[in-house]
Amino acid sequence: MIKVGIVGGTGYTGVELLRLLAVHPDVRLTAITSRKEDGLPVADMFPSLRGRVDLTFSAPDKVDLTRCDVVFFATPHGVAMSQAPELLAAGVKVIDLAADFRLKNQSSFEQWYKIPHTAPHLLEEAVYGLPELNREAVKSARLIANPGCYPTTVQLGFVPLLRAGVIDAGSLIADAKSGVSGAGRKAEIGTLFSESSDNFKAYGVSGHRHTPETVAQLQRFTDQKVGLVFTPHLVPMIRGMHSTLYARLTKEIDNAALQALFEDAYKDSDFVDVMPFGSHPETRSTRGSNMLRLALHRPEQDGAPGNMLVILVVQDNLVKGASGQAVQCMNLMFGLPETTGLQQIALLP
Amino acid sequence: MIKVGIVGGTGYTGVELLRLLAVHPDVRLTAITSRKEDGLPVADMFPSLRGRVDLTFSAPDKVDLTRCDVVFFATPHGVAMSQAPELLAAGVKVIDLAADFRLKNQSSFEQWYKIPHTAPHLLEEAVYGLPELNREAVKSARLIANPGCYPTTVQLGFVPLLRAGVIDAGSLIADAKSGVSGAGRKAEIGTLFSESSDNFKAYGVSGHRHTPETVAQLQRFTDQKVGLVFTPHLVPMIRGMHSTLYARLTKEIDNAALQALFEDAYKDSDFVDVMPFGSHPETRSTRGSNMLRLALHRPEQDGAPGNMLVILVVQDNLVKGASGQAVQCMNLMFGLPETTGLQQIALLP
Amino acid sequence: MIKVGIVGGTGYTGVELLRLLAVHPDVRLTAITSRKEDGLPVADMFPSLRGRVDLTFSAPDKVDLTRCDVVFFATPHGVAMSQAPELLAAGVKVIDLAADFRLKNQSSFEQWYKIPHTAPHLLEEAVYGLPELNREAVKSARLIANPGCYPTTVQLGFVPLLRAGVIDAGSLIADAKSGVSGAGRKAEIGTLFSESSDNFKAYGVSGHRHTPETVAQLQRFTDQKVGLVFTPHLVPMIRGMHSTLYARLTKEIDNAALQALFEDAYKDSDFVDVMPFGSHPETRSTRGSNMLRLALHRPEQDGAPGNMLVILVVQDNLVKGASGQAVQCMNLMFGLPETTGLQQIALLP
Amino acid sequence: MIKVGIVGGTGYTGVELLRLLAVHPDVRLTAITSRKEDGLPVADMFPSLRGRVDLTFSAPDKVDLTRCDVVFFATPHGVAMSQAPELLAAGVKVIDLAADFRLKNQSSFEQWYKIPHTAPHLLEEAVYGLPELNREAVKSARLIANPGCYPTTVQLGFVPLLRAGVIDAGSLIADAKSGVSGAGRKAEIGTLFSESSDNFKAYGVSGHRHTPETVAQLQRFTDQKVGLVFTPHLVPMIRGMHSTLYARLTKEIDNAALQALFEDAYKDSDFVDVMPFGSHPETRSTRGSNMLRLALHRPEQDGAPGNMLVILVVQDNLVKGASGQAVQCMNLMFGLPETTGLQQIALLP
Repeated sequence: MIKVGIVGGTGYTGVELLRLLAVHPDVRLTAITSRKEDGLPVADMFPSLRGRVDLTFSAPDKVDLTRCDVVFFATPHGVAMSQAPELLAAGVKVIDLAADFRLKNQSSFEQWYKIPHTAPHLLEEAVYGLPELNREAVKSARLIANPGCYPTTVQLGFVPLLRAGVIDAGSLIADAKSGVSGAGRKAEIGTLFSESSDNFKAYGVSGHRHTPETVAQLQRFTDQKVGLVFTPHLVPMIRGMHSTLYARLTKEIDNAALQALFEDAYKDSDFVDVMPFGSHPETRSTRGSNMLRLALHRPEQDGAPGNMLVILVVQDNLVKGASGQAVQCMNLMFGLPETTGLQQIALLP
Repeated sequence: MIKVGIVGGTGYTGVELLRLLAVHPDVRLTAITSRKEDGLPVADMFPSLRGRVDLTFSAPDKVDLTRCDVVFFATPHGVAMSQAPELLAAGVKVIDLAADFRLKNQSSFEQWYKIPHTAPHLLEEAVYGLPELNREAVKSARLIANPGCYPTTVQLGFVPLLRAGVIDAGSLIADAKSGVSGAGRKAEIGTLFSESSDNFKAYGVSGHRHTPETVAQLQRFTDQKVGLVFTPHLVPMIRGMHSTLYARLTKEIDNAALQALFEDAYKDSDFVDVMPFGSHPETRSTRGSNMLRLALHRPEQDGAPGNMLVILVVQDNLVKGASGQAVQCMNLMFGLPETTGLQQIALLP
Repeated sequence: MIKVGIVGGTGYTGVELLRLLAVHPDVRLTAITSRKEDGLPVADMFPSLRGRVDLTFSAPDKVDLTRCDVVFFATPHGVAMSQAPELLAAGVKVIDLAADFRLKNQSSFEQWYKIPHTAPHLLEEAVYGLPELNREAVKSARLIANPGCYPTTVQLGFVPLLRAGVIDAGSLIADAKSGVSGAGRKAEIGTLFSESSDNFKAYGVSGHRHTPETVAQLQRFTDQKVGLVFTPHLVPMIRGMHSTLYARLTKEIDNAALQALFEDAYKDSDFVDVMPFGSHPETRSTRGSNMLRLALHRPEQDGAPGNMLVILVVQDNLVKGASGQAVQCMNLMFGLPETTGLQQIALLP
Repeated sequence: MIKVGIVGGTGYTGVELLRLLAVHPDVRLTAITSRKEDGLPVADMFPSLRGRVDLTFSAPDKVDLTRCDVVFFATPHGVAMSQAPELLAAGVKVIDLAADFRLKNQSSFEQWYKIPHTAPHLLEEAVYGLPELNREAVKSARLIANPGCYPTTVQLGFVPLLRAGVIDAGSLIADAKSGVSGAGRKAEIGTLFSESSDNFKAYGVSGHRHTPETVAQLQRFTDQKVGLVFTPHLVPMIRGMHSTLYARLTKEIDNAALQALFEDAYKDSDFVDVMPFGSHPETRSTRGSNMLRLALHRPEQDGAPGNMLVILVVQDNLVKGASGQAVQCMNLMFGLPETTGLQQIALLP
């Protein structure tokens, strides 16, 4: 059994880790920390866990995380970097769900996240935990930077095209939409029910932290300089993420060949579902599951430019976009089948 | 007092016309038809109107619409074209909220709407009822083709740029999102609460009827051939529409000059609110009102192509996107101030 | 023109007052205060008001409210009691939307609201602003205690029965459901979208502040001792309140006579809609309007006790349940027709 | 492996059975029928099942259900009664999720469901499938009448009190609230998103089919004549049911003793969570899981009648209220641990 610790279990990625790990056959939940909730049974905060998780939150200084085999950081940016060095030194693997190790470039990190990086020596070693594009590296990693939710969809949608060299890498557009849980479990007016229900808006259009992460990762798959316009929006739903991607084709290629590019790219990936060409994936088809689904479209109607490709990508932002992906990485790091404990079927309706 | 008739008052654009016209100071609601609901008091179907509208639905053959000064068609496509000729001949003005007269090109209409056009001789005369781009023609019109909801946002967002010749007309993208009421009041599984709540999806990506309408109208404002990718999505909210528009700048122009283009274009338009550069308009800021709000963004972050412009446009799809716009046209046609009866402030929260 | 001041305009009852008063034909908005938002244009906080309200928030000490004819307090409990004496002394009428003057009994107030009452000498004079039960007193009032949202529905549902002496006053049950906006515009985890959407729960079942207010008011209409079980619930909708009231009939009385009791009681009340016996009022039929609708039911099916009466009552909690009712009181206090500026039709859908 | 057939798999209880049974370790999904969708892969209708369920709908006459060990009927009322006799004769167990066998009294069935009963000889044998109150009978049953969703909550909330004889059985009130999925996957205007979102209403107040079922079952646990007022409401959420139960205590009994009654009654029931006295269970704490949670309250505030007890009960209407309960019965019928395949933790948020 893998002994698992969770740092910062009071947010949505924390409770989602608990939901997944509590039924994972090879895991023993060992410790969960929260400075504010020291002594509170986890199930008192999240009644969905009553009778299923009997852990109690511990203050960070009251628990020895080096007894764990792996520690997940479901914390704000900046926490993992301060604790990872000691844990790694003690032989504990680390999976950070925040951004501390996502950007290889320290100054880019500090520019976007507005805090100094306290463990820059680990940036090179950290493995970007997107198994579909990085499986072998994940298997042997000690330290995982779990991808952002948006970047997961954008990368899995564009990379097969970039690799094949059939699109203009310099004019990519990602019009992305996220459920409100992506904003986290923080008391803020903007995400109150009365503010965000029956409403739709864009945010961060002039600049979002997920852009540099996405661009840096996409750049690995093409020699052309990547240019990306990324526009996030807030959807009045709890979970779910839908990215509508636009790319300009630069080569003659028919729809069957495009479809084949994707089917090939993900033929060994149990959690990527390449739907038939022209499908319209719905976010709810992934609600609560670790699946990401995508489909290609080529608008060729009267008036549409003939060389545009539209890729629709959906996932549950808290599962494949966060905690499920982290568990998927853990499985690979410990030599388990990638899908262990992640076979939940989406809740529909 | 303007005597008003409504054909087909049982859908959402019908009840919205009633909400607006019941408090319009210069209107007398005279007749409302419904084949199925003959004899039913309108307020029995829509209890929001109890005590405020005492009309009763009449079967079409039981009411003489030629007594009206103006007749609104809040009907499926195909109805207005069959009744408009007779009404016009009797001196009654006609405002069609469906698509019968939106496309000047008969064959394009028949291709997209799959029905033969029975009044093609009126296509030329019909005036496209988007007052902000067509005010003088609306004033003298006998027959108004009220624009589609999506096309209203796309045109008001792109036209100032096309007119100024600063963008590439051939590579426009409109990533549009609509509340569910846009699908109408029809018993269908896809728009059930349990199917569309807590869910997000694109639809009609390979081709949507609003594309030819939008392209034809945009083409009026540029000599370059218009190319548009239009991607509609369904948002789990009742009312509201958000179009995220992408255009490639082809001229050097700074943000202040871009902003000025829009402020200038709409300086006489009470229902278009050009928000400060970089704003994020919310759909709820227009809920129940006839306002359309828009804002410009220029993503210049690391990794973004420097020449892209993003225009965010919001409206209430049932008001400025349908019934409110129709009333706005009526006001102009009858020499009233454009804003008469349309001063409702959006419901927030 | 009535010069109106608003103290505390940054909450939902504040912005709702602005929505209503901005189009009120006899009102001039004169001042709005907010300690935190001093200097901010109101329309910057609430973009729904852009172009319609050009007031700017002022710190309380920067504005002389005694220039107003009437001041509304849309503040937390405790503010009105501290400022009302001075305003009243200066001849300004006061309408408090909070609870400061709702309970005649000072110690009951202090027990439930946990603050000392600083103006107990005004408790006797304050008029409970429920015009349907108290119209004449409202007309001549200087100081109005605007009722709580829940108590408005419970009183208007039970009073005709209590007055007639046909029910057991000692065993009343009010199972009440409110939209989330009733919790106000405060940054709290419990009312985040991700916490309260797609969810339903009761709260405060062991004791809610609206119970003593309701019981005290109901007691005015019966000699029997009133006993009330009040159970509030949170509904995942923004606006709307539905109270399901249960009473045990103690007299033989048929349905027509019961219906007549209500139609009679409210025959002069434009804002109470007594629907046909057996109707099911929907909250949305009042969304954005000042209407309260109610209907009677008598479950006589197999297995149901024959003497139970069910009364269904709906309103918009922010309009008839708060700001609309306050404006209704203002109209009466200034000799205007009760419905002035309150003729908005509910937004449906 | 238990060979399972499902009749009528295109509704919400059908797809929910598939979600549960597809990961049940002792089940092999063998056949699923649908007259309309013959030949359609199940996963084409429900993309949440892509890659997990590769069954195809078959017309009823194309599949031999007698090869199954058990057949679930997720059909409208009337179907199971027509097919059960033949299946039972062939040694196949039957679990009906509709109402065909819920009422022992044939004429009561025919009165409420408006169809003649074609298998009345099976009414006596059919076992009411509420394991918490009927576990032993379920174990040996051939034919299960799976309870209605509302009756499950009302019975589990009232029965411990009725058994103990501490409440007045003649004046029970159940104020119940259901998510919209309870209305099924039928194209109807009333449950469209635009009609039922941001709205709340009661329905069927004068009489609902679940009342006779509930009363008949409750009657088994008391000698006093049961009287029940049952008031269902529609909540704008997909899944979830909350019943607020009111009972009048007729004996002196303190809160601890009341709590003990419930803890005792359900001490062997893994799917009933008796929360601490005074808790407020949320529906989302059961979303997607087979748990039912309940809590007791005794409003003793000023003004409340001292002898009233309030019981709050929540469940997921599609799981414990339908398909999960059916699988729970199946487990018992086949000698499996009751919780097999039903350990899903609720999705929160």
